[in-house]
Amino acid sequence: MSKQELVVLGRDDQSASCCPGLVTAPLDEDQAAELAKIFKALGDPVRLRLLSLIASRAGGEVCVCDLTPAFELSQPTISHHLKLLRQAGLIDCERRGTWVYYWVLPGALDRLAAFLTTAQKAEATA
Amino acid sequence: MSKQELVVLGRDDQSASCCPGLVTAPLDEDQAAELAKIFKALGDPVRLRLLSLIASRAGGEVCVCDLTPAFELSQPTISHHLKLLRQAGLIDCERRGTWVYYWVLPGALDRLAAFLTTAQKAEATA
Repeated sequence: MSKQELVVLGRDDQSASCCPGLVTAPLDEDQAAELAKIFKALGDPVRLRLLSLIASRAGGEVCVCDLTPAFELSQPTISHHLKLLRQAGLIDCERRGTWVYYWVLPGALDRLAAFLTTAQKAEATA
Repeated sequence: MSKQELVVLGRDDQSASCCPGLVTAPLDEDQAAELAKIFKALGDPVRLRLLSLIASRAGGEVCVCDLTPAFELSQPTISHHLKLLRQAGLIDCERRGTWVYYWVLPGALDRLAAFLTTAQKAEATA
């Protein structure tokens, strides 16, 4: 696992306190750099479609063999995009026999959502 | 105002129904393309810092003259980043005399947050 996968929106609760909400306080340079990596991973239509295909799947996980047919792209290209989503800490995967299975990390998505929402400002100042 | 500013996360309520939540249903190609533009705008450390500086400002708006000193970047570079945030529909601005004043569009941020949060799946299926 690369260093990038351990920051900001990792699997543990400690990371939840990494960054203030967008409306709570200005980000420092390190926080902005880490968060920008994650938003950059989301800043591609293929990756967003892959993420939504995985996230919306009943049962919570998807075989890569079910993802590839949804795109007019090669298997290596799909795998590359999935790798970038994984490095951003948004999904994880496991190989079982021939195929790799992917699932989203809901904690990471929810923390990103909490970072963006402006409602917390009202709560914080109430 | 360019076409890009009118999509997905615009100022009006109609845009709220543009995209399903990430965990609700797979995005189609058009939805993914529009959302990716917005996430791409967030996928840069300088733009994230600018957005957080504007969003966290008491009073809700910031003079560009107060933003530039926070960065070791030229005024045109800062203005370019602000333009990209504006084109993504995340902020808006107004010129008053010498200076331009910026504010965030909280509806756009909240809709982006709602798109990312996985909690809505539980609500939708409850």
